[in-house]
Amino acid sequence: MNTRIPLANIRVVLVETSHPGNLGAAARAMKVMGLSDLALVNPKCVIDDEARARASGAVDVLENACIHSSLDAALADVALAAACTSRRRDLPHPAYTPRQAAPKLLGVAQSQPVAVVFGSETFGLSNEQLMKCRWLLNIPSNPEYSSLNLGSAVQVLAYELRASLDDTPLALPEFELAPHEAEQALLTELEKTLIEIDFLNPANPKRLMPRLRRFFAKAGLEKEEVAIWRGVLSAVKSRLTGLR
Amino acid sequence: MNTRIPLANIRVVLVETSHPGNLGAAARAMKVMGLSDLALVNPKCVIDDEARARASGAVDVLENACIHSSLDAALADVALAAACTSRRRDLPHPAYTPRQAAPKLLGVAQSQPVAVVFGSETFGLSNEQLMKCRWLLNIPSNPEYSSLNLGSAVQVLAYELRASLDDTPLALPEFELAPHEAEQALLTELEKTLIEIDFLNPANPKRLMPRLRRFFAKAGLEKEEVAIWRGVLSAVKSRLTGLR
Repeated sequence: MNTRIPLANIRVVLVETSHPGNLGAAARAMKVMGLSDLALVNPKCVIDDEARARASGAVDVLENACIHSSLDAALADVALAAACTSRRRDLPHPAYTPRQAAPKLLGVAQSQPVAVVFGSETFGLSNEQLMKCRWLLNIPSNPEYSSLNLGSAVQVLAYELRASLDDTPLALPEFELAPHEAEQALLTELEKTLIEIDFLNPANPKRLMPRLRRFFAKAGLEKEEVAIWRGVLSAVKSRLTGLR
Repeated sequence: MNTRIPLANIRVVLVETSHPGNLGAAARAMKVMGLSDLALVNPKCVIDDEARARASGAVDVLENACIHSSLDAALADVALAAACTSRRRDLPHPAYTPRQAAPKLLGVAQSQPVAVVFGSETFGLSNEQLMKCRWLLNIPSNPEYSSLNLGSAVQVLAYELRASLDDTPLALPEFELAPHEAEQALLTELEKTLIEIDFLNPANPKRLMPRLRRFFAKAGLEKEEVAIWRGVLSAVKSRLTGLR
């Protein structure tokens, strides 16, 4: 998938933020995950030096933020708005974890703007503000201490959106695996060497070779590693011969 | 599932951190997700008022942090250490995204200590430090701006562990993994033996030990396997001595 389109369509909306450091942290959290559309609703602080310092290389996101006088204005063109909240409500909207919500948010964001809305550090979002959003998002947390920092909440959501977008397995760099035959030959050679050094008693082998075979199987032996292990075995043997 | 046991067994290890604010942010990020075991390796700053302010209600995590003079000491009793890094390496250990790694980390943490390791703000982790960990973790990020704040990286990992906990049915690992200390001692012993049999030239070691370290990292060394390999090494040595 082209990662740019859905991420560019996701707007982070911060309502009545009071600490400049959190504005900066939110901007950096966004940019690191590929988001750039920041909207501030009635901010209770200004973008100052502390905000810029915490934004680090994401000052552009901060400086390009749109400032709105109402949540409605910030959400005007949005197709799906999800409000981050830790509170339980009497009349809850559909509530999801970020992981449950991310695929749907990204799906909509392939063609239309989507918003994730965060309340103020002290009061969160009011019921009225929550009801302007279609979904509630509950970030899982420790029930005994659920005080997630605002910048961290933005980081978690931005991470979840990106991780859900490119959740492709990170493969090991393409090392060539050893062919079956080479692996078997190596293990035979290893067995012989272990007999020669009197570690393995062929009359009473116990579970040694099965355990070593399992160990090599877990490692996923590569072609070059066969050469390394063969070198080790032949060094052991030539030392034994040389000393005879 | 009882969420306490695996989360209590997960240690966050911060290596050479230079900003007190990041120590505090990391402590808060941990506690909010239910983690509490913080280890600092050679911190380049002290726990000051800024650290305590950023920790907010997680000052206890900060104050209970263990301070170590080496990464090995912080990892001594750990069964599985995963290093957070954004760099690509020539000889990489197995690398995963947090999402891929979380179920396995939580599985091991049901019975043994597990560590997630973070480098300094400026330099990250050295190759030597990375090679002491079995796994590398790559947090997905924007390729054009991947400068994730240290506290935010801890937040992302802690969130992923908690979110995966609520998501995944965990099976106990079948075999007990070898603790870090035993694995490192075995690798040191292997290196010595390879020198004794003239396979490894200490004046020109090339990439042999990094390759072997990677091989053992892929295999996920178990406690019983340490005994097997130690037996192999001592058999090699006693044969050499016996023949002299």
